[in-house]
Amino acid sequence: MESTVEFTVATAPFARAAARADRLLPPRAARAGGVRLAVAGRQLRLSASGEEAAVWGDVPATVNTDGVVAVGRRALAATLASLDASEVRVRVEGSRLAIRTGSARFALPLLDPAALGPAPEPPPVAGRTPAGAFTAAVAAVAGAASRDGLPLFSGVRVRSDADRLRLAATDRFRLAVASVPWSGEGPVDVLIPAGILAEAARMLAKPETAEVTVLADADRLGLSWAEGGVVVSSLALPYPDAQLERMLGVRPECVMDVDADLLRAAVERAMPFAGPIGTVTLEAADGVVVVRGSDDGAGDSREEVKAQTTGSTTASYQGRYLLDSLRAFGDDRVVLRFQTGIQPTSITAADTDRTELRYLVVPLRKSP
Amino acid sequence: MESTVEFTVATAPFARAAARADRLLPPRAARAGGVRLAVAGRQLRLSASGEEAAVWGDVPATVNTDGVVAVGRRALAATLASLDASEVRVRVEGSRLAIRTGSARFALPLLDPAALGPAPEPPPVAGRTPAGAFTAAVAAVAGAASRDGLPLFSGVRVRSDADRLRLAATDRFRLAVASVPWSGEGPVDVLIPAGILAEAARMLAKPETAEVTVLADADRLGLSWAEGGVVVSSLALPYPDAQLERMLGVRPECVMDVDADLLRAAVERAMPFAGPIGTVTLEAADGVVVVRGSDDGAGDSREEVKAQTTGSTTASYQGRYLLDSLRAFGDDRVVLRFQTGIQPTSITAADTDRTELRYLVVPLRKSP
Repeated sequence: MESTVEFTVATAPFARAAARADRLLPPRAARAGGVRLAVAGRQLRLSASGEEAAVWGDVPATVNTDGVVAVGRRALAATLASLDASEVRVRVEGSRLAIRTGSARFALPLLDPAALGPAPEPPPVAGRTPAGAFTAAVAAVAGAASRDGLPLFSGVRVRSDADRLRLAATDRFRLAVASVPWSGEGPVDVLIPAGILAEAARMLAKPETAEVTVLADADRLGLSWAEGGVVVSSLALPYPDAQLERMLGVRPECVMDVDADLLRAAVERAMPFAGPIGTVTLEAADGVVVVRGSDDGAGDSREEVKAQTTGSTTASYQGRYLLDSLRAFGDDRVVLRFQTGIQPTSITAADTDRTELRYLVVPLRKSP
Repeated sequence: MESTVEFTVATAPFARAAARADRLLPPRAARAGGVRLAVAGRQLRLSASGEEAAVWGDVPATVNTDGVVAVGRRALAATLASLDASEVRVRVEGSRLAIRTGSARFALPLLDPAALGPAPEPPPVAGRTPAGAFTAAVAAVAGAASRDGLPLFSGVRVRSDADRLRLAATDRFRLAVASVPWSGEGPVDVLIPAGILAEAARMLAKPETAEVTVLADADRLGLSWAEGGVVVSSLALPYPDAQLERMLGVRPECVMDVDADLLRAAVERAMPFAGPIGTVTLEAADGVVVVRGSDDGAGDSREEVKAQTTGSTTASYQGRYLLDSLRAFGDDRVVLRFQTGIQPTSITAADTDRTELRYLVVPLRKSP
């Protein structure tokens, strides 16, 4: 194959594939980073890879000349993002890749596709899962990973069970665990950086994908669907699976059933009164939960939210952790299970859907 | 009047007045800063003042006990912003101002209203102008002021003419001048920091105000309308009015009539090719304007946009200045008047509405 191509392609899917390649790979490499365009038969395949991840996207194209070329992925994404023409004609002209619409020509410097290295071989198929449930699970769980702590806590643990794929993340102050339906062919047992997993899962949402194929080996996790796929490297760190399992064994002293949205709104209203570390207190008893914020400087707040309660309790939390966890349940009804002391409070949906989600939030130590 | 009040008030206008007081005054003073609540008859007046500005807002209220109290303006705004109850009951309870809905009570520490100093006397009425035209003029002109340069160039010059109120701002690379209809009673001749003027003008938009009363003396500009008002201090700096006037005397070598939105979109598409300082070239001739970006590293772009042209010219600009100025005209048709050398290019609307707006953009020196 020579460094020459000529093809016509619909702008929207081409722009989407270019944007994905640009977004998934780390920005620090973006200026230098290239994207391969391989055209053959009736298809254009974009592919790009970095140390942490590889991504590809397939777009139907009318191909005049087969070949493989490479251009900068930031430049390609930026050029295609703002076009309003419905299709573009693309071909090599000298040392540039020319992209034409009816009234415009954009010419990107060609890179040497060989310099990008070989496209990595994706890991084998491990199983399949419904894309919507998977995307929801990643969105809910990735938020509980730490943004700036130890690398271990910046990851999402992904493991396959008999018929569920389980995702978990913790920053030690809260823990989120979700599981989704799983038809497995091989095991999944990896720890994926939360940010890149969240970005990869967002790709499934547009256009809507029904089912995602999960690829895995000992060091990598991949997702593949009709339009393309991604492969991400696992963090090579031992995860505290046993501790996580112990935390999930909840022995409640009080159980409360409440509308997640109403409780979240009340916690938000308490936040201006929650003092420097944002302490919000929940007091559950007799068909109501009282949400309090109190701080000498800021004043105090007290709000009642209707709830079904069994037992009674008072516990304080960093309000932002409560907000994050309640947001993950939208306007569903949730069940809060309070334990004694500083053992975590569990939050689950009252009616479980395909994404089984559980959030654990560690309460603040009580002042003496 | 004692430090005691009791009243019931609709939440939405109360929250709006509190948000305005909080937003207009500088954030550095926000924690310490208080807002006065004066209730009498059927009205609640919120007022707050800092070194640069004063703001007030009037809200109809059902008053049980007249009086004046003060609380933190950030705290009041944050509390009211998130309430979903349609009205609130407010009264002094001990050292707190209690704000109650059906299910919640929020208690803010009272401040000493005397410690906030006296509410400043607003300047006298100088004239009246349509609020919509004024808001549009401020939005377009304030963007041309400098964000981080000399204080002189961070201001909007506001002066009254016989039947127009003129606003102008420049950062020396571009100049925006707008004028709006004016029924004057006294002169306006001030220089107002662009950021605070833009914030004040935004207040007029919600709920929509038909006419704004302009207040002015030698050192201050005020805006007043049914729901409230603001007063802002003038910068005490001599403005280069004569130079500004000279810049407005345009002798075009080429005149071009083009759709602002189409030209803006083409300039945006050229930006990825515009190199490190974002150089975009316009080449006008024979019923078309060619928009070019070119940079050795980034490649090049060429796009044609239909235009009516008289004469021909080629000029280069920092693309972001072109974008700012074209955005100010939305999807109107605009007339560009190109001058020779590095004399500024003038942009005006083809059909003038009540806000007469003119943008001048200085081209880049041609490379030899």
